[in-house]
Amino acid sequence: MKVAFLGPKGTYTHQATDQYFDSYEAVPCSSLRETVEAEADAAVIPFENSLGGGVSEAVDILREHDIEVTGEIKVDINHVLASEQALENVGTVVSHPQALTQSKQFINKEDLDKAESSSTAKAAENLEKGQATICSRKAAEINGLDIITDKVQDRETNTTRFLVLNGDKSEGDKTSLILQPGEDRPGLLEAMLSCFSGHGINLEYIQSRPTRNGLGKYYFYVEADAGKNSENFSKVERCLQTYADVKVLGSYKRG
Amino acid sequence: MKVAFLGPKGTYTHQATDQYFDSYEAVPCSSLRETVEAEADAAVIPFENSLGGGVSEAVDILREHDIEVTGEIKVDINHVLASEQALENVGTVVSHPQALTQSKQFINKEDLDKAESSSTAKAAENLEKGQATICSRKAAEINGLDIITDKVQDRETNTTRFLVLNGDKSEGDKTSLILQPGEDRPGLLEAMLSCFSGHGINLEYIQSRPTRNGLGKYYFYVEADAGKNSENFSKVERCLQTYADVKVLGSYKRG
Repeated sequence: MKVAFLGPKGTYTHQATDQYFDSYEAVPCSSLRETVEAEADAAVIPFENSLGGGVSEAVDILREHDIEVTGEIKVDINHVLASEQALENVGTVVSHPQALTQSKQFINKEDLDKAESSSTAKAAENLEKGQATICSRKAAEINGLDIITDKVQDRETNTTRFLVLNGDKSEGDKTSLILQPGEDRPGLLEAMLSCFSGHGINLEYIQSRPTRNGLGKYYFYVEADAGKNSENFSKVERCLQTYADVKVLGSYKRG
Repeated sequence: MKVAFLGPKGTYTHQATDQYFDSYEAVPCSSLRETVEAEADAAVIPFENSLGGGVSEAVDILREHDIEVTGEIKVDINHVLASEQALENVGTVVSHPQALTQSKQFINKEDLDKAESSSTAKAAENLEKGQATICSRKAAEINGLDIITDKVQDRETNTTRFLVLNGDKSEGDKTSLILQPGEDRPGLLEAMLSCFSGHGINLEYIQSRPTRNGLGKYYFYVEADAGKNSENFSKVERCLQTYADVKVLGSYKRG
């Protein structure tokens, strides 16, 4: 099967795709929107990072497209320092600004100059003499670079959560949905949340996003701790429908 | 007084600063963090856009720093097409990717090539022959460019909300606060929101952000429709304190 993912090859999204699918034909894409619209059987997109937070554009894409969420993948972000040369011949480290920021202590300790690139994977593709990159283990392997040091990031707890779109369906113990209230009035968000607690279902994640119809108008992306075919979830859905347009994006197994 | 803002000169944040302060000494800064840490009497940062949503980094900065929110400014984002040359001599339009995306219809109609720059204001500073830029009216004026066309964006409803930090205090009818629950349990967010509704105070805005201690752990930035010195707000605060660490960032007049 063909699986589209946010590329180029060697990104953490590529690594997540490897982790989830046993075998697949890789369709690396250059933007989130392209990934979702690519001619492929399924797609994998980054959705939330434990340091940076939610990927807003991904939420907006789920709202706009006719997409089913069918899976979740969690990947520990471990940056490696990779190069074709030994550390003593390296003066500059090239990577995405976020990876450079996340590895500040290491870079300072080794007294390296910094240069920015648009992705960790692209940096690994285009290394020049005297340069090393901070990237995923996969990007180093694909581009034939030696791994000089493993886990160069400052903190251990850097995890990214990815969503699998339009893959094989399964029962699932978690459901993604979008709530779009037609009006705003005091207490509306609390009332919607009471549909979950009233039926004993925990809310795992909530993101508010602008509806693009002016400041102060929001919709909500929510993840609930229950499969969409469970009896309680169907009650929650009916309760929510009394307050908002409800779009159930799909149920899937926790990553 | 010295006012720091997200620069360079000619950004929409600069325009917002002009709108709020009668006279001030401009301290343009190159990042949000630099703006907040600059040696100045007050600072202005972008906080929310009606199309793009909240500026996540700004929320994290408010949580980490000892800052008082003292004002709010709303600015209608009107992009102009500006150049030193007439439209018939322009082949390429240079601007920030977001401004280019927001003006897609105009660019297609005029059949212009696109080139990206890191900010609308920087594009206006560095125009070359045969180029025009899409930027704020202020950036065009500062850089001595002619305004070829006004309001080139696709949609009319593009508004950005800015916050004024550490400015003159006023009574205020709106309060910003940060809620950081020590634990997560089913229904906690709903319980916190009930403190507002229970005391008749409307919630205007809520953003969840990661605490940076692993996936699934969040804090909340909230704006409430009441001054922090009102009797009802002090009850809300006491109610919230039974659920979370509460940091009141300040009260201010609606923008």
